[in-house]
Amino acid sequence: MRGFYIGRFQPYHDGHHHMVEEIATEVDELVLGIGSAGDSHTRRNPFTAGERVMMVTKALDELDVTTYVVPIEDLERNSVWVSHVQSMSPKFDVAYSNNPLVVRLFEEAGVEVRSSPMFKREVLEGSELRGRMIRGDGWRDLVPDEVVDTIEEIDGVARIRQVASSDANGGDDHARPSETDTDGETPDPA
Amino acid sequence: MRGFYIGRFQPYHDGHHHMVEEIATEVDELVLGIGSAGDSHTRRNPFTAGERVMMVTKALDELDVTTYVVPIEDLERNSVWVSHVQSMSPKFDVAYSNNPLVVRLFEEAGVEVRSSPMFKREVLEGSELRGRMIRGDGWRDLVPDEVVDTIEEIDGVARIRQVASSDANGGDDHARPSETDTDGETPDPA
Amino acid sequence: MRGFYIGRFQPYHDGHHHMVEEIATEVDELVLGIGSAGDSHTRRNPFTAGERVMMVTKALDELDVTTYVVPIEDLERNSVWVSHVQSMSPKFDVAYSNNPLVVRLFEEAGVEVRSSPMFKREVLEGSELRGRMIRGDGWRDLVPDEVVDTIEEIDGVARIRQVASSDANGGDDHARPSETDTDGETPDPA
Amino acid sequence: MRGFYIGRFQPYHDGHHHMVEEIATEVDELVLGIGSAGDSHTRRNPFTAGERVMMVTKALDELDVTTYVVPIEDLERNSVWVSHVQSMSPKFDVAYSNNPLVVRLFEEAGVEVRSSPMFKREVLEGSELRGRMIRGDGWRDLVPDEVVDTIEEIDGVARIRQVASSDANGGDDHARPSETDTDGETPDPA
Amino acid sequence: MRGFYIGRFQPYHDGHHHMVEEIATEVDELVLGIGSAGDSHTRRNPFTAGERVMMVTKALDELDVTTYVVPIEDLERNSVWVSHVQSMSPKFDVAYSNNPLVVRLFEEAGVEVRSSPMFKREVLEGSELRGRMIRGDGWRDLVPDEVVDTIEEIDGVARIRQVASSDANGGDDHARPSETDTDGETPDPA
Amino acid sequence: MRGFYIGRFQPYHDGHHHMVEEIATEVDELVLGIGSAGDSHTRRNPFTAGERVMMVTKALDELDVTTYVVPIEDLERNSVWVSHVQSMSPKFDVAYSNNPLVVRLFEEAGVEVRSSPMFKREVLEGSELRGRMIRGDGWRDLVPDEVVDTIEEIDGVARIRQVASSDANGGDDHARPSETDTDGETPDPA
Repeated sequence: MRGFYIGRFQPYHDGHHHMVEEIATEVDELVLGIGSAGDSHTRRNPFTAGERVMMVTKALDELDVTTYVVPIEDLERNSVWVSHVQSMSPKFDVAYSNNPLVVRLFEEAGVEVRSSPMFKREVLEGSELRGRMIRGDGWRDLVPDEVVDTIEEIDGVARIRQVASSDANGGDDHARPSETDTDGETPDPA
Repeated sequence: MRGFYIGRFQPYHDGHHHMVEEIATEVDELVLGIGSAGDSHTRRNPFTAGERVMMVTKALDELDVTTYVVPIEDLERNSVWVSHVQSMSPKFDVAYSNNPLVVRLFEEAGVEVRSSPMFKREVLEGSELRGRMIRGDGWRDLVPDEVVDTIEEIDGVARIRQVASSDANGGDDHARPSETDTDGETPDPA
Repeated sequence: MRGFYIGRFQPYHDGHHHMVEEIATEVDELVLGIGSAGDSHTRRNPFTAGERVMMVTKALDELDVTTYVVPIEDLERNSVWVSHVQSMSPKFDVAYSNNPLVVRLFEEAGVEVRSSPMFKREVLEGSELRGRMIRGDGWRDLVPDEVVDTIEEIDGVARIRQVASSDANGGDDHARPSETDTDGETPDPA
Repeated sequence: MRGFYIGRFQPYHDGHHHMVEEIATEVDELVLGIGSAGDSHTRRNPFTAGERVMMVTKALDELDVTTYVVPIEDLERNSVWVSHVQSMSPKFDVAYSNNPLVVRLFEEAGVEVRSSPMFKREVLEGSELRGRMIRGDGWRDLVPDEVVDTIEEIDGVARIRQVASSDANGGDDHARPSETDTDGETPDPA
Repeated sequence: MRGFYIGRFQPYHDGHHHMVEEIATEVDELVLGIGSAGDSHTRRNPFTAGERVMMVTKALDELDVTTYVVPIEDLERNSVWVSHVQSMSPKFDVAYSNNPLVVRLFEEAGVEVRSSPMFKREVLEGSELRGRMIRGDGWRDLVPDEVVDTIEEIDGVARIRQVASSDANGGDDHARPSETDTDGETPDPA
Repeated sequence: MRGFYIGRFQPYHDGHHHMVEEIATEVDELVLGIGSAGDSHTRRNPFTAGERVMMVTKALDELDVTTYVVPIEDLERNSVWVSHVQSMSPKFDVAYSNNPLVVRLFEEAGVEVRSSPMFKREVLEGSELRGRMIRGDGWRDLVPDEVVDTIEEIDGVARIRQVASSDANGGDDHARPSETDTDGETPDPA
């Protein structure tokens, strides 16, 4: 059986990894979809799809199941999103998600969905991790070692600090390569 | 004379229908444009273009004038929006709208625009109706019967409740099929 | 040496002009990029790319250096934004920007970036100027004369007032040619 | 039962109409999808979506079944095309098509497809009809009367003649609003 | 009076320049639109928009009228093409074109169009010039000196030779950054 | 050192595999880019990105180097194509390609490119392989075993035969989910 698990993985952390390890006990092959693949260099989405492919692939190396890691670009059309995902992924039998919208879309398309509790939700949240990088607090213990390696190889902490300062410091007249995103410093209420 | 009236119709309600009946006294043929046709499965835009085409077409069945119901996908370029609308619609002589931006765009393009007061604005507002569906309050008396039929055929209330819970409950790490929209529970101040 | 300076120029004002005059002392040729070229008819982006090309070109007429004025459409992909800019502009040796994200993107692409303090930031801010147009306060003394001429030729103040009223007055059911933008009446904290 | 039938309808002709009348004996409601809705003003696609909506709607007026006429913009992604069509149309139970690709796509998506022989294929072919318009040969007897009315209202024959001359006469240096299409003067080998 | 003249300018040559000089006798200000601005690095469209902006701007420097040079990206929608052009250009009173499609689109939009015979059409044709660059035949005498300078600055002849060899030599399995274009070695029949 | 090799892999065959094995002797990590990732269900591009990810990943399983397999959607803009590829891939030091356009684009972006002769070019060509599938000739001996498995799992031969018949048999009036491609039955002249 082949399973599919999608996330933005900004960055991939121990909460994701814990969930992947649980899924790996249920499936023979696992596809990880890198969501919002076209986004990067913002506070909410600091890393490119390629950088996330690298950190996820390396972190999954020890798993026993066959894994695929595929970037999924946003399509901004909920009604065709499932077909888009299916075209970018090896055919899968079950999708894993806790997000009500994702669950709804897969279910309306006739795809089986399974949910599971996230591990240590209060700290293992992408926005919390990004906030720690920006403030200089500890984050290395909350992600797999391979993710630390990747972020250091690409000088990722310096990047997220610099792009985050666009929000606080950037005046109205600046050019806008991409919409400023609004990732708060506190974790989302989940 | 052919008239054009555009709305998102999420859902089509008695306020819209009242306005359509008034327009029908002024024109021979009426085009209804289903705006933001590509959006669906969000709290602000729960229904697909096709579902809205169905509810509007059935609700207009009794009208004496010839009607056309055409989905209009967003183009995100105000400067070409009028041309886009004109290419998707039978040629029209007058556009009906109360929205200042829509009025401005049509006027700059040399199209006659007529405005008229909306009927029972305080309750007949899309966001109010969607809030009632989510909270379990009464909404069936505020829309044409054919709209009730359509929403029940597609299990629409369950859908809007499920996707609305993405806003309150969804953590940061979830995949993002589409930007969460920010439709508040209270009616807009209009 | 050829320099590149990008802004949205909504509208082009004395703060921009002051910076351009300084840059002109450092380069032989200067490219001005009109950012968010596809946006217009909103409170935050009232003027089309063509209207901004006209006001900037006329305001630069007296400069001694060769100038190019090129519209740059948004691409919504930070990772390819520099390549996009480079393909629309004559080849340049140095980019001028104070925006941390723009600086980061150019630096990661190996392009030299220079920053400089903006002139009279407290009033020479696009959002402040647009707020003055909407409220009927004085704005003509804060922009080059050629910009006043252009805005009057296109009836620009009436346009920004009308589209700005969409935010305050427009109810939920209205059609949406483009996302309402959220330009506040007070200057940005920069 | 609701059926779906898609075509480019450039223009809608007696062959289409014959097929629609047959489908109408099998379904309660019929959706006509106007394919390649964004294309117009070329030899192969002379009429806008709105113009085709008008000719089809008027030609279907006498039918006993409820009909919907919806423009379908191209998405250039076969793998999501069925979902796209489904989002723009009221939910349908069966699709009608003779095109092998369309049949394949619907079947892979689990949608029932029915095929049927086209009527008088040798003359009732869009490219043959457009060729006749360009050469000044008779075409009015091969389309419903309402289509003649629409094409005359929009001065359609003059348009197709003028845009067709771009192929034969247009040199390389001309601006290119859209790719020249390659509709030959002879009917396709079907 | 302001005039608008659009071309792909691959490259800008004496035929274009001759036409521009004639137009300059009829208008006060002239806008040159660089068509297919997003295309480059193919046999048919070797130069980027920015490179063409540079060659055109420098070649126009001696003209007495005020000139604007604006890249126009393709939109692949003929029905909104005029609005798109108008949004990227200072407002113009008359368009110059010999292309029947362009003439038709402007006329349907109510814009005055003027046509004029091209100068020395048999050699002053973009495809002829590009063929000469590829074959090593003389081309420098057929373009303004500033165009020679620009093409040499960007090593343009080497580029067009290399990308042209993709057509003849490239097998099926190669990656495809962009559709191969089909610019023949002989001039177009115009 | 990390290498990057891109192809459409329609399907992945022994010629590709031979080249990959050679590259693997030169690099520590290898990224395979699946080009034209959005295309599928045509004669020239029968398989989805996900299906190609599966066949390539399984065929690479025995390699000693770390491999990444990433779909790359077309962008139709040569000038930003390298940046697009770089954003979807882990950072690489050298690109492998025999295509002159790809070589040119990488070189202009400052990326090292290496070329090498393809293995048994006369039969190991995608179009030859697809022709054999359509005609019922032998193709299984020309691809890795894992590719045979994948194509059989997805019923790929039936699909390519059905969509290929659209070219020969499809009349003009059919709906067009995607442009018909023009893959001839004979191998390309390379």
